[in-house]
Amino acid sequence: MSADSASALVITPTQFLAHWQGHRRLTRRVIEAFPADQLFSFSVGGMRTFGALANEMLGMAVPTVQGIISDDWSQYAEGAAISKDDILAQWDATTARVDELFPTIPAARFQTTMTAFGQWTMPGHDLLLYIVDNEIHHRGQGYVYLRALGIEPPPFWER
Amino acid sequence: MSADSASALVITPTQFLAHWQGHRRLTRRVIEAFPADQLFSFSVGGMRTFGALANEMLGMAVPTVQGIISDDWSQYAEGAAISKDDILAQWDATTARVDELFPTIPAARFQTTMTAFGQWTMPGHDLLLYIVDNEIHHRGQGYVYLRALGIEPPPFWER
Repeated sequence: MSADSASALVITPTQFLAHWQGHRRLTRRVIEAFPADQLFSFSVGGMRTFGALANEMLGMAVPTVQGIISDDWSQYAEGAAISKDDILAQWDATTARVDELFPTIPAARFQTTMTAFGQWTMPGHDLLLYIVDNEIHHRGQGYVYLRALGIEPPPFWER
Repeated sequence: MSADSASALVITPTQFLAHWQGHRRLTRRVIEAFPADQLFSFSVGGMRTFGALANEMLGMAVPTVQGIISDDWSQYAEGAAISKDDILAQWDATTARVDELFPTIPAARFQTTMTAFGQWTMPGHDLLLYIVDNEIHHRGQGYVYLRALGIEPPPFWER
């Protein structure tokens, strides 16, 4: 790889935030697509419900961004929503908080290696990618749950 | 967002390639985890089989990288593997080809807007993210298929 190409700008923080929030809008539509009485009860193959998976996503998002900014990793807490309305309200609160916090990540932190929540040691950008990837991964499970319930999921490419 | 933070380096091409190939190694393990006689027959909720989804991933990977490099978008072709051995052999060939091609992407192409395969207009970095995201999304479906078959999938965090 040429030095020029190896160090090129692939994506800016502004673009990364837009990318993540696009995924979060899609995940919100997947939550909305679940019947309220299935969100915390239905699953396939003994896996977690989509409500439980959404709680995991909620527990990771803001605490990880705060940790990347401050190196304070004490705030991880699985979401504890127990209804569809509750999940959606927490989702929207997280959306606003991520929009506030993300632009304050100091530039150097994307390339700084850190240990998140006492367990995961990697550069800041990999932690952020991990959160987005984890959301996509579990949302893919949610698509199967919806199909198994006879419900058409929202198109993957619409953000 | 401060100008400094807004234009910061989030991830380099070398890091992006490593991230993608890490996901591709995990997807390979998911393919390997399927019994050969289920890869092209089993699914949940009337969705595509994991063999069909893996063929889609194979069809996108190299043609997209080639298009980003050259702006020649004529080469899209869904993979046509019909057996587990065939998929795995094509997977490994794609791994090697992506490793060869990716470092030759001109630096400016990550931020250049282009229309891929006559349909998808977005910056190069978004096309690359789309391919990785699509792979994670469909692999998440594969995890549910494996669980529904009573098979433990490989850990998501191991790349």
